[in-house]
Amino acid sequence: MYDRVKGFRDFYPEEMQARRWAMDAVEDVARRYGFREIGTPALEATEMYVDKSGEEIVEELYSFEDKGGREVALTPELTPSVARMVVAKQQALSKPIKWVSTRPFWRYEQVQQGRFREFYQTNVDIFGSAEPAADAEILAVAVDMLTDLGLTSEDFEIRVSHRDILSGLLESFDADVDTREAIRTVDKRAKLDREEYLDALYEAGLSHDQAEEFDGLLQSGEDELDALAERSEAVADATENLREVLDATADFGVREHVTLSLSTARGLDYYTGVVFECFDSTGEVSRAVFGGGRYDDLIEGFGGQPTPAVGFAPGHATLQLLCERAGVWPAEELTTDYYVLQVGDTRPTAARIARDLRERGNVVESDVADRSFGAQMGYADDVNAETVVIVGEQDLENDEVTLKEMDGGEQVSVPVDSFPGEHDRPTFEDFA
Amino acid sequence: MYDRVKGFRDFYPEEMQARRWAMDAVEDVARRYGFREIGTPALEATEMYVDKSGEEIVEELYSFEDKGGREVALTPELTPSVARMVVAKQQALSKPIKWVSTRPFWRYEQVQQGRFREFYQTNVDIFGSAEPAADAEILAVAVDMLTDLGLTSEDFEIRVSHRDILSGLLESFDADVDTREAIRTVDKRAKLDREEYLDALYEAGLSHDQAEEFDGLLQSGEDELDALAERSEAVADATENLREVLDATADFGVREHVTLSLSTARGLDYYTGVVFECFDSTGEVSRAVFGGGRYDDLIEGFGGQPTPAVGFAPGHATLQLLCERAGVWPAEELTTDYYVLQVGDTRPTAARIARDLRERGNVVESDVADRSFGAQMGYADDVNAETVVIVGEQDLENDEVTLKEMDGGEQVSVPVDSFPGEHDRPTFEDFA
Repeated sequence: MYDRVKGFRDFYPEEMQARRWAMDAVEDVARRYGFREIGTPALEATEMYVDKSGEEIVEELYSFEDKGGREVALTPELTPSVARMVVAKQQALSKPIKWVSTRPFWRYEQVQQGRFREFYQTNVDIFGSAEPAADAEILAVAVDMLTDLGLTSEDFEIRVSHRDILSGLLESFDADVDTREAIRTVDKRAKLDREEYLDALYEAGLSHDQAEEFDGLLQSGEDELDALAERSEAVADATENLREVLDATADFGVREHVTLSLSTARGLDYYTGVVFECFDSTGEVSRAVFGGGRYDDLIEGFGGQPTPAVGFAPGHATLQLLCERAGVWPAEELTTDYYVLQVGDTRPTAARIARDLRERGNVVESDVADRSFGAQMGYADDVNAETVVIVGEQDLENDEVTLKEMDGGEQVSVPVDSFPGEHDRPTFEDFA
Repeated sequence: MYDRVKGFRDFYPEEMQARRWAMDAVEDVARRYGFREIGTPALEATEMYVDKSGEEIVEELYSFEDKGGREVALTPELTPSVARMVVAKQQALSKPIKWVSTRPFWRYEQVQQGRFREFYQTNVDIFGSAEPAADAEILAVAVDMLTDLGLTSEDFEIRVSHRDILSGLLESFDADVDTREAIRTVDKRAKLDREEYLDALYEAGLSHDQAEEFDGLLQSGEDELDALAERSEAVADATENLREVLDATADFGVREHVTLSLSTARGLDYYTGVVFECFDSTGEVSRAVFGGGRYDDLIEGFGGQPTPAVGFAPGHATLQLLCERAGVWPAEELTTDYYVLQVGDTRPTAARIARDLRERGNVVESDVADRSFGAQMGYADDVNAETVVIVGEQDLENDEVTLKEMDGGEQVSVPVDSFPGEHDRPTFEDFA
């Protein structure tokens, strides 16, 4: 009768359980690294995005005037809200500030595979450290999230680049280059054919020969960073910083997952140092799974004290695509520890048993619809109950209940008074 | 520089941690009862609320036209979305359907204590059972949520009423009564003075004497239900149903928390049977903490098969007020298991130790900002680290690190190679 809005999704329990598993795994990594959860509003002043976000984001804003005449927008990304929060309590907050949150964002985009108008991201940021160790910790959190989801170095790679190397190289040519435009072109490199790409670099101010040379430099491996450094002091400083970050990732235990890739640029203008993107090693998920990087100027741009920052934001739709491709996405099916089945007028005992099992941490369902034995068994099967506790009038006359293990079909009778006993999260095996 | 939008809140980590504790406790109860998490969109077609929600909700909608010309609204409540989802997969879904979700909603309301324009609710619903056991299970979930938060029968009471008793009583008078309007008046009883209240019942069609008599009937205790039942068959059926629900709450172990209160009515029009509200026993939190009830006609109204339903939705702002009043709201402060402090060039070892401690489930921070001993100690204190692992160059020469228990100040040296060993979530005591 009513349709959901295009680009918005309903998640039924089976799929939601799998998504919750992934979100919990991702958040738990950040939590163990000492990132602290924050909560942020769904609406912000439209002005903030017009001033601070890129043109593309502003074009895709869900914005409107509220009943009080305020121009407001559904948040299309977290960074401006977080910057606002950092600035609002800058003096009181102990540095470095390490924040995490998972929530939906909204953009009026073209709907396609892994891209929706309502999409979920986990944002992870460090404010207040310009040190390579901060970049490396962010990379380590990213890698640990992926490996905790069950992915291996066969499944993904993190491609690391540096904005100051890109801009330094561009400025090292004898040309009047629009570095911002040229970097945006590098970001689109994989989507453009060779000619379009070189033309776009030409439009940004490089000659055709320079464009070819620049692109050649972007293919440099780690052993060629020293050669790049000779082009200018700016490039030398940036390669030094990049090398320190790569060295730090070794200390953090994630070096093997990280590769140099100067043709990685990231689309957003606000990045300032190390940038990175995660890719499916097989290429089956063709877009970047997620990305991040350093943005040292943003907080000052929001009126705060100069505050270096680095962060990233895995999107859960593309993470799911990668997990599915790699075969680590969980089966989308319900799990239930116990179904307490009532035969005849046995609710007082059944309800007591269900309550006791729940108190011991189990997921327990029982009949609330006065249904037949068969209907209850069918439902227990639908929710994948591991064990059914049959509470029957006749059994109760013998002070017993029957436990049925649903997978194998094994049954045992147990004394009702001592069931379920004192075990934490007891299973069928504890009684068999 | 930018302000947040009025009625919207930022949650910094200390407060967020307390809120997360409460949300987790509430969700965990529903989870153990076999309620399954669903995910729902933030935007729906405005039309759905105009058709299905009360006038008050429509007046407070954040609604607008999206870039595709769709009239959309920020969801002000969950029930219409859930009804839409049930109808969309009605045949495929195993009954009873038991769903839970926690998320924000948005209404352009007057901002006041415990009431914001962005507010969080946990919605809990059962679809597909008209049996008293379903009502009782919902009441049991509500009570268990409150007791799991640390609240006792001294702190709260659940006041139970029945829409069909109210309407049956109203129809038992020799008068042409607008029952919907009269029930709305009962819902406002506590906010109106006596004269306003009786006048409003008069406006709804009762004479002044009838209004007085009706209000007297609403004060009936449980032992007076039989007398009420004599007024009409409809009232007799409804009192019978209410009694069965109350009896079932005894089986579910929550009878002591539930009291009869016929002057409880709930504001929303769609309720059909049992309705209830949770109140602060001390009255300090003066509004209902939350409420719920049966709404058997809603799914059919959304174009689905007739499907009885019962549910409730605790709001986290008022829950917090109650917990604070009762002294069970947790201290709003960060918790950290370990801070790994680096003295000199010890990052490789410090990072390895931090990694190992995290793998064992601990929350661990370490220096990512190249800070002094004192600055690191200050930070460890700010994040309430329980134990500081001091990784110093000199200690490492002796293959040792120093553990400092921050509360008592006790210190021990431990061999670096065997630290932290194989313990799950090790603490200072495991090494002292």
